[in-house]
Amino acid sequence: MGRVTVRRPVLRIRGDKRSQRPDTLAAEEPMEIRVGGKPLTITMRTPGHDFDLAAGFLVSEGVVRSESDIAGIRYCLGTAEDGSNTYNVVDVLLASGVAAPDASLERNFYTTSSCGLCGKASLDAVRTTSTWQVGDDPLRLDADVLAELPDKLREAQKVFDSTGGLHAAGLFTAGGELLGVREDVGRHNAVDKVIGDAVRSNRLPLRETILMVSGRASFELVQKAIMAGIPALAAVSAPSSLAVELAADAGLTLTGFLRGDSMNIYTGTHRLQQSPQPA
Amino acid sequence: MGRVTVRRPVLRIRGDKRSQRPDTLAAEEPMEIRVGGKPLTITMRTPGHDFDLAAGFLVSEGVVRSESDIAGIRYCLGTAEDGSNTYNVVDVLLASGVAAPDASLERNFYTTSSCGLCGKASLDAVRTTSTWQVGDDPLRLDADVLAELPDKLREAQKVFDSTGGLHAAGLFTAGGELLGVREDVGRHNAVDKVIGDAVRSNRLPLRETILMVSGRASFELVQKAIMAGIPALAAVSAPSSLAVELAADAGLTLTGFLRGDSMNIYTGTHRLQQSPQPA
Repeated sequence: MGRVTVRRPVLRIRGDKRSQRPDTLAAEEPMEIRVGGKPLTITMRTPGHDFDLAAGFLVSEGVVRSESDIAGIRYCLGTAEDGSNTYNVVDVLLASGVAAPDASLERNFYTTSSCGLCGKASLDAVRTTSTWQVGDDPLRLDADVLAELPDKLREAQKVFDSTGGLHAAGLFTAGGELLGVREDVGRHNAVDKVIGDAVRSNRLPLRETILMVSGRASFELVQKAIMAGIPALAAVSAPSSLAVELAADAGLTLTGFLRGDSMNIYTGTHRLQQSPQPA
Repeated sequence: MGRVTVRRPVLRIRGDKRSQRPDTLAAEEPMEIRVGGKPLTITMRTPGHDFDLAAGFLVSEGVVRSESDIAGIRYCLGTAEDGSNTYNVVDVLLASGVAAPDASLERNFYTTSSCGLCGKASLDAVRTTSTWQVGDDPLRLDADVLAELPDKLREAQKVFDSTGGLHAAGLFTAGGELLGVREDVGRHNAVDKVIGDAVRSNRLPLRETILMVSGRASFELVQKAIMAGIPALAAVSAPSSLAVELAADAGLTLTGFLRGDSMNIYTGTHRLQQSPQPA
């Protein structure tokens, strides 16, 4: 597992000054997720917490809902050229009675749309496959607690400061207590790892929690939060239009541009403990 | 095509001040790419330049190498609920004799790896499918020109300043002249759109050009540059380990952390016009 970072020589230019020195890079390797021995997908990820990644991916896909849905997770016995295991193929054995996923990751779209694929079909697909109703979650949010989350996430990041190349996802209580943090070159992977950690310790749905991400909030990240029963997503940067639409549709509180004591709350403002004052 | 941005109400919090106001969001919608009527993939993208996106995606996948490989591109006649076209399904008709892609996007990995999937298999797959040899490209780079690219890219971005939510990719000459720029919620889509624009005007391979991206440099972005014959990739943020490995393998010049007159050059330093001075 010692492959989270890699050292490489680099030519460093600072104005007129040039120097050769070693640099620390965020590791990126392909990982194949199999279910019952059958290949499902390949993701480019930072090695580490691979079983969390596989489990969390299957939560996002609506295949796994609780710890008991997973009978076992193992590394496929690998065959690198030198005969060693690459630890890049993970096989998930589902419990008896749990339906295996369709090999086509696009199935959610195809079942709800014809030629006229649109954002609405994407919302319908999430609504159809989600087990939890995050709109009913009793979470109440304090803007002062939200304002502390970016610093707490950054402090919890062990690797970021040395590479500058990893996205982070952190799960927090309403009071701002950190429940879990994961890092990855892919922001969707960082979120899957946090959620996978939670499902493997049987903590789904993640009621009254806040998911904080280091980058932007896309449709896909809102979808992952909903599939894990997380009622609030906060991002350092901007949300997309479809992320906001899905959050509104599901009753999730979506916060963007969370920096210092400033933030934009796009949906679910009823969860804020102090009501908004008209300007 | 007027869907690049969307207006939404937002609760804006700045310290103790709260206000309700409209905010501009980057639009995100699913787009399905079909080849000869057969569904190939769905990507979440910002609408606009959709034909460029489809063409560029097929270049990245090794299906299309020149304008003459494409017989036509059209929007599938759509059927939204109100009967209108969603403009979210694009069908590419390949020229006679051009092999249609395998519907499995993971095929490149599977043909070169068994259970022991590893980074090397990923490098091999790019080497096998790439038509152009970017290592032979005569491009020479001037650090002063590189230092100007981030500002030029930002100036060329029409939407970023209003939403903060779009990635940008720009193609430049060795002298720093902008050849093309595209924006998208997905950074891979922004690159595909730039490359698609070039292939549709029959400008591949993109010899002696520099591709500049607003975010990080992943394996996938280096792969896309190589597939379009681009010999230099520059990124505002960090590269991943596998991005650097692939760039070294292919002879591409990879620059990261390009900010002001400071930058890190990870591979292909021979293209710099002034040789590095030992510190």
